[in-house]
Amino acid sequence: MFAQTPEPPYYAVIFSTLLTEDYDGYVETIDEMIALAEQQPGFLGIERARNGKEQGGLGISVSYWASLDAINVWRNNADHMAVKGKGRKKWYRAYRLRITKVEKDGTWEVGG
Amino acid sequence: MFAQTPEPPYYAVIFSTLLTEDYDGYVETIDEMIALAEQQPGFLGIERARNGKEQGGLGISVSYWASLDAINVWRNNADHMAVKGKGRKKWYRAYRLRITKVEKDGTWEVGG
Repeated sequence: MFAQTPEPPYYAVIFSTLLTEDYDGYVETIDEMIALAEQQPGFLGIERARNGKEQGGLGISVSYWASLDAINVWRNNADHMAVKGKGRKKWYRAYRLRITKVEKDGTWEVGG
Repeated sequence: MFAQTPEPPYYAVIFSTLLTEDYDGYVETIDEMIALAEQQPGFLGIERARNGKEQGGLGISVSYWASLDAINVWRNNADHMAVKGKGRKKWYRAYRLRITKVEKDGTWEVGG
């Protein structure tokens, strides 16, 4: 559920999205993209959440990476780029993408 | 819906949470906390999303800040600390907190 990330520093890509009404193929394609990302060198994990429609439907996906190089290789991956193009034409109404360096982290569990 | 952040660099605090079954007072208190955060110097905005229970209920809240100092002042704010203590006792089953520096960002809108 939570990404099992190492000690900082590492990198986080925050991808905030609003979807169109056209979900055709969206879930399958995103699942394929995540499976592909998981095979990339330097991929550390992903956390995803999306509000219901009644809350406006904002989604936040945070993927974690070992380095900026790993992020750039993924951003230039051909299959990924094809899906990004499709996403812009079809599924995404708007998005924000932020590339960040994780400097510090903390964790807490009940009874932990 | 999206936080209106300035040109990087700025900071993002990624707070990923799983809730208990006890929601009593949660929504009201979080709304109060956000209203209080909005008054802090250096607060730039917040984006929040939570999955439905059938998807496991993961929530991701990303708050944006002008500096690490602004984040530290907020982390040491007395009201905020009181709510954190209550959250650990009552609402949160587990969380991950990551403090990150936004190095690069991008935006896209349909027709934009």
